[in-house]
Amino acid sequence: MTTAQTVFGTPSTMGDDEQLTTTRLFSHAARSFGSQQIVHRDQDGDWHTTTYAETWRRIRRLAAGLREYGVGPGDRVGLLMWNDVRHFESYFAIPALGATMVQLNLRLAPKDIAYVIEQAGVTHIIVDESLASLAGDVDQHLNTRIQRWFIGTDHRLSDAQIRLHNVHSYDSVATHNQPLEDLPNVDERSASGACFTTGTTGRPKGVFYSHRSTWLHADALAVNVGIGLHDTVMLLTPMFHVQCWGLPYAAVKVGAKIVLPGRFTMQQTPMLVEAMTENAVTVAPAAPAILNPILHQFQQLEQTPDLSGTRFICGASEPPLSLMRGIWELTGAEVIHAYGATETSPIVSVNRVLPAVAATMDEEQRWRLRRSQGMPVVGVDVKIADPMGQALPFDGASAGEIRLRGPWVTRSYFEDPEADESAFDEEGYWCSGDVGTVDENGFLKVTDRLKDIIKSGGEWISSIDMENTLAGRSEVGDVAVVGVSHPKWGERPLVLVVPTMGAEVTAETVRQALSEDFADWQLPDKVEVVDEIPRTSVGKINKRSLRETYAEAYQDA
Amino acid sequence: MTTAQTVFGTPSTMGDDEQLTTTRLFSHAARSFGSQQIVHRDQDGDWHTTTYAETWRRIRRLAAGLREYGVGPGDRVGLLMWNDVRHFESYFAIPALGATMVQLNLRLAPKDIAYVIEQAGVTHIIVDESLASLAGDVDQHLNTRIQRWFIGTDHRLSDAQIRLHNVHSYDSVATHNQPLEDLPNVDERSASGACFTTGTTGRPKGVFYSHRSTWLHADALAVNVGIGLHDTVMLLTPMFHVQCWGLPYAAVKVGAKIVLPGRFTMQQTPMLVEAMTENAVTVAPAAPAILNPILHQFQQLEQTPDLSGTRFICGASEPPLSLMRGIWELTGAEVIHAYGATETSPIVSVNRVLPAVAATMDEEQRWRLRRSQGMPVVGVDVKIADPMGQALPFDGASAGEIRLRGPWVTRSYFEDPEADESAFDEEGYWCSGDVGTVDENGFLKVTDRLKDIIKSGGEWISSIDMENTLAGRSEVGDVAVVGVSHPKWGERPLVLVVPTMGAEVTAETVRQALSEDFADWQLPDKVEVVDEIPRTSVGKINKRSLRETYAEAYQDA
Repeated sequence: MTTAQTVFGTPSTMGDDEQLTTTRLFSHAARSFGSQQIVHRDQDGDWHTTTYAETWRRIRRLAAGLREYGVGPGDRVGLLMWNDVRHFESYFAIPALGATMVQLNLRLAPKDIAYVIEQAGVTHIIVDESLASLAGDVDQHLNTRIQRWFIGTDHRLSDAQIRLHNVHSYDSVATHNQPLEDLPNVDERSASGACFTTGTTGRPKGVFYSHRSTWLHADALAVNVGIGLHDTVMLLTPMFHVQCWGLPYAAVKVGAKIVLPGRFTMQQTPMLVEAMTENAVTVAPAAPAILNPILHQFQQLEQTPDLSGTRFICGASEPPLSLMRGIWELTGAEVIHAYGATETSPIVSVNRVLPAVAATMDEEQRWRLRRSQGMPVVGVDVKIADPMGQALPFDGASAGEIRLRGPWVTRSYFEDPEADESAFDEEGYWCSGDVGTVDENGFLKVTDRLKDIIKSGGEWISSIDMENTLAGRSEVGDVAVVGVSHPKWGERPLVLVVPTMGAEVTAETVRQALSEDFADWQLPDKVEVVDEIPRTSVGKINKRSLRETYAEAYQDA
Repeated sequence: MTTAQTVFGTPSTMGDDEQLTTTRLFSHAARSFGSQQIVHRDQDGDWHTTTYAETWRRIRRLAAGLREYGVGPGDRVGLLMWNDVRHFESYFAIPALGATMVQLNLRLAPKDIAYVIEQAGVTHIIVDESLASLAGDVDQHLNTRIQRWFIGTDHRLSDAQIRLHNVHSYDSVATHNQPLEDLPNVDERSASGACFTTGTTGRPKGVFYSHRSTWLHADALAVNVGIGLHDTVMLLTPMFHVQCWGLPYAAVKVGAKIVLPGRFTMQQTPMLVEAMTENAVTVAPAAPAILNPILHQFQQLEQTPDLSGTRFICGASEPPLSLMRGIWELTGAEVIHAYGATETSPIVSVNRVLPAVAATMDEEQRWRLRRSQGMPVVGVDVKIADPMGQALPFDGASAGEIRLRGPWVTRSYFEDPEADESAFDEEGYWCSGDVGTVDENGFLKVTDRLKDIIKSGGEWISSIDMENTLAGRSEVGDVAVVGVSHPKWGERPLVLVVPTMGAEVTAETVRQALSEDFADWQLPDKVEVVDEIPRTSVGKINKRSLRETYAEAYQDA
């Protein structure tokens, strides 16, 4: 991991040692946008309104309380919380002390949460009352005792069922002291927050965001999505997931109104939609998993709300075109496809289009373009790498691994040299594992996951493309394509087909069907006719099991 | 000049050593927004269109040419240019080499330009052909010979009248080489550009902007004015004046279309207005001096253009309400009042209002609010300092000197310790010389220039307020108030009045007239009835001459 040595020119006269911190961010926002509202939902489902100015006082009172308990520079404080106002206060209070807030993903198994706590060196944890039971389970897996647990509750702490030691009420800590005045001048390269990946393989890996990266990412998000003073931002995706995609910081930076929905389930979508309408929400991050029920709820309403000007930022997985169109046609709200990961803060690219480029397209083309990951934002270096790691041209055709580098892209995992070895290339780029292209208009398109790519003789074959081509044939009921180890070519494609009733499928008919879209050398040597394709609990083809089952298929080649 | 020592917490894992440079800015913009247009007017008044991608190639070809002539890290290259495409290319080519571009204000006297050149250590200069004659005059005042002059011309260089040595054609330098590929990785604290103040007193003082401050300022401008991909930005104010208020960088950062009007005079306002309409310009920086003729031109047009959504960013001096309303009512374009200086890159505050605050006001109140300097942007520390340098509260009433600090505020003047001594306070704040207040809603209001404030017994008296009160009286034809040295109180106010025909004015009537708005101790001890108030060539009261004339007025006190 190296970057080119820096060259120093004439020193500037500017305030280059002024630190870009989340403390500077909130204190300035509280000064300039003091009366701006933060609307939040409590543990009983009731809504309340506070302001930036009042929240800044609460943040500094919480900081004073935490400092009294010994939290200071270099410490790590865990958060096991829903998207409520206490979580929001913690976002700024912990880093203000020079400490790092470590997000604990409440969807993980207790033993994995315990791993994250120990790997990150967490000494104090703030927990929502409703998660105290989970915290108790986590505690069973910890080898080191947590110094203090702070419970956020809207009720009497003594009424709560808690199986933890050294328990304090968050609110008493947050109200015991006057607002801290002498906040430390924290170096911008200190970690303000941390999130761990939830990789399907291996253990969670830590990404420690700096104050600097958080500041710069907030600007990138605001500039590229176009968030401003007149917006109302609802923090809809979990605040423990990539810091709610950086939106809490971007919203504060521009002085937007903020809506915190607290704890909710998918069954409570009507409540979310009502809150959106009542607060005139204009920006919300949303994965397809939540956008689908939201669209459904819009369709149920007697009076469809007019949401023109509203932007749902959609990431995590590619939003289906039908979803984007459905929301647009019904409400006028735009679904903006964006791309990123825990490792990238997350914003790498945002789907927008230059007016001059849009003018050359018809409506269908413009809709199709919306499925692309969009244009990489200024600040992030993008490399499309071939199997040897060489950069490929941005021509819309050359597909390679998407590798990323920049001020808000991680350079390593936290104290995990083993994970680092395979995840970063020599130039310091993070290897995303996604395969894609960049076209002449700057659009990034993810075409595959690297693990679904078959590496044959130093070249690539897309298993997904091959599956899609075969799935369109009338004789094919279900299909899977996997790469199987081959003594000469490294890997070769193996096709598994479930024929439709009465149809006949052979290696020859399959090769024939593929010959129009694939080169000769890419065509599969073997085709297996099977009764069923194994799938995972979420309905994806279980490629890992297939690769294991057919590991020896080409050993005799 | 000190700031609190920084505290380092847990190191982040982020790419914190990725440099924020104008080179990263343009190269990424050229990648993602390659086909975005740059429309520019040449020396013959003809319009041309190029793109970000093509301009990036031109920038790197110019960089290659300059490097061949020995320009490298730490060098300073002067620019004596109008707002044309060569100037725009130079903005990025010079810093890409690790050198600093030094803006030469073509409105200064030749000897002052020569001073700037020598003070900044400029070795190479790029000059528009139309300014070659001025360059010849400047050259007469130089003690050191400039190594090379590069002339930007749309004609044959041999036809030009040039009294300079070592002259080269800009275009031949910019086209002789292939685009430079191995651009240095310049440290973000290096100076990318420099501008000198044109203080009415003393010699020009150098402000050297860093790559970092330029990057951060571009974000602040884009976020707080709300500039995006769909905007068209016309660079209307001089690019030699505070780097066109940072708009070239902000525009590139968001991928906006850019319009460069080249050289023009006020008589060519019809051409400017036509270009605005044709290119559908949505953002332009503009001082009242250019906005007035623009409004006049709008009024002349048979078909008034619909400019709803257009924003004129107005600074340099306070835009009259009539001008802001006139443009709004005629065209729907908004005039946004902003505040800053050469020392602050310049954005300190932007006039916007939270929807909730606007809702509490009637139309007249909202218009009056537009005269304020607006809300300070996140990133800039603001202090309202009393005469002893102590911070005053943000209560809308306590007036003090506006002092500023932040990542894009200067910490010193370039190699000018004498100027530094009076311009920065112990906490590193730049002392603006403006007096103002900040109110509970975060609005900054400039009320006075410090030199127009009378310091009496450690307290302040506003000469402008006193003049305004007296100017409203029927018996007062003209009036001036100045601070005059006083052996006991430091300074005391002296009032000069030209009575209206037949009216009688005495010290007693003046004190009586002021007694409602001013405290007893603030009332003037002396009132002089005069025939005429001396004024400067631009119609301002000549306070310097008055202070000299009446220097001894209180010596007998």
